[in-house]
Amino acid sequence: MRITIMTIFPEMFEGFLNTSIIKKARLKNIVDIQVADFRQFTKDKHNRVDEYPFGGGQGMVLMCQPIVDCLNTVRTEKSHVILMNPTGKTFDQKKAHELLEKEDIVIICGHYEGYDARISDYVDEEISIGDYILTGGELGAMVITDAVTRLVEGVITAESTVDETFENGLLEYPQYTRPVDFEGKVVPEVLLSGHHENIRKFRLYESLKKTLINRPDLLENRELTDEEARMLEDIRIELNI
Amino acid sequence: MRITIMTIFPEMFEGFLNTSIIKKARLKNIVDIQVADFRQFTKDKHNRVDEYPFGGGQGMVLMCQPIVDCLNTVRTEKSHVILMNPTGKTFDQKKAHELLEKEDIVIICGHYEGYDARISDYVDEEISIGDYILTGGELGAMVITDAVTRLVEGVITAESTVDETFENGLLEYPQYTRPVDFEGKVVPEVLLSGHHENIRKFRLYESLKKTLINRPDLLENRELTDEEARMLEDIRIELNI
Repeated sequence: MRITIMTIFPEMFEGFLNTSIIKKARLKNIVDIQVADFRQFTKDKHNRVDEYPFGGGQGMVLMCQPIVDCLNTVRTEKSHVILMNPTGKTFDQKKAHELLEKEDIVIICGHYEGYDARISDYVDEEISIGDYILTGGELGAMVITDAVTRLVEGVITAESTVDETFENGLLEYPQYTRPVDFEGKVVPEVLLSGHHENIRKFRLYESLKKTLINRPDLLENRELTDEEARMLEDIRIELNI
Repeated sequence: MRITIMTIFPEMFEGFLNTSIIKKARLKNIVDIQVADFRQFTKDKHNRVDEYPFGGGQGMVLMCQPIVDCLNTVRTEKSHVILMNPTGKTFDQKKAHELLEKEDIVIICGHYEGYDARISDYVDEEISIGDYILTGGELGAMVITDAVTRLVEGVITAESTVDETFENGLLEYPQYTRPVDFEGKVVPEVLLSGHHENIRKFRLYESLKKTLINRPDLLENRELTDEEARMLEDIRIELNI
């Protein structure tokens, strides 16, 4: 898989590209991540990439020309082009799996203010990583790159992604490790019992409970098994809700 | 404001801290951002910070000791401590404004697998930046730091944040800049008219339209003015929905 990130701040990606999983995936040639500086494509004599908006208003707007010219040099026939934009659709784990099917992804990052709306005509989709405003699309591009890269075969072991939050529609159950007693806080006994079925039930119960408390919206969109439905009733009694 | 980020990958933050708005805010001493490496606090002789989970399962779990010991050296009485966790509540612009009220924020980033659940007892809240799984909490810590820092007085001009997506509950209207004609795509005439009231109406209409198409959920939680309600009716007719 190849991912090309278009930005006017390529230096912002250095730490990201050279750390942990992303670094390993690049060194193993599993994922090829390139960064292209679209400021180098501007035809403005002062090297500007933005201009005042027509119709007035605060701030500057990124011009079509540098972005489209840069895009034309990096895109191939297979490219799937993403514009990072807070007005786009919200990125989620399902979208990460969808992008995994693409051989070549281009991610365009704006900075400070918005894009000239006509840039939308040159991209396949516009994505936001959440309902908040950031200085630029760079962190969003890193988020997408990270979320997708870790799903690529060979990057991490397949088993470690199965039980995770969002993969099965529930928040992950609480985990505990050594020591058994940390400052008087003790690991739940069942986890030390070696009784697999009880451990499974404990984890499912806690997973449902955490989801009900922190993210009840996830339960609305999920079909429950009989066991899960029964547990949820018990949880509602326990929490008195 | 002071923000301390706890991580085992401090080098990942270099580009982020030395680019754009964050760099300026730091150089102007408006925001003090520190990075603390909690691996340096481990008492494990092999410098490990994680261990196998009790009860079995894939992957490793971050131990309490290095994180709690690091936290004890960086936190003050005023610290508001955030644990980056996909099972936490979802970060949004409202939360960014809430955090703006804090003088001192500590953000703890896990990496690879989860935390020992007992770490929750040492933090004020657990935050996720969206419904996707990342290699670690580092990108989430950058997202929160960026979203909050740009709202701090003196970092960017106040006017440029008012009209933005999410600040008024709608997605931002499309912007256009020079040239008027880019590859045959022309700027909407109204924006060149100089007629302020028509421009305002055009932008509100387009803002509602984009929100209805990309993020209808935002409209469900928003009280509409009479003008907005009328426009939405027209938009539904235009879009035939």
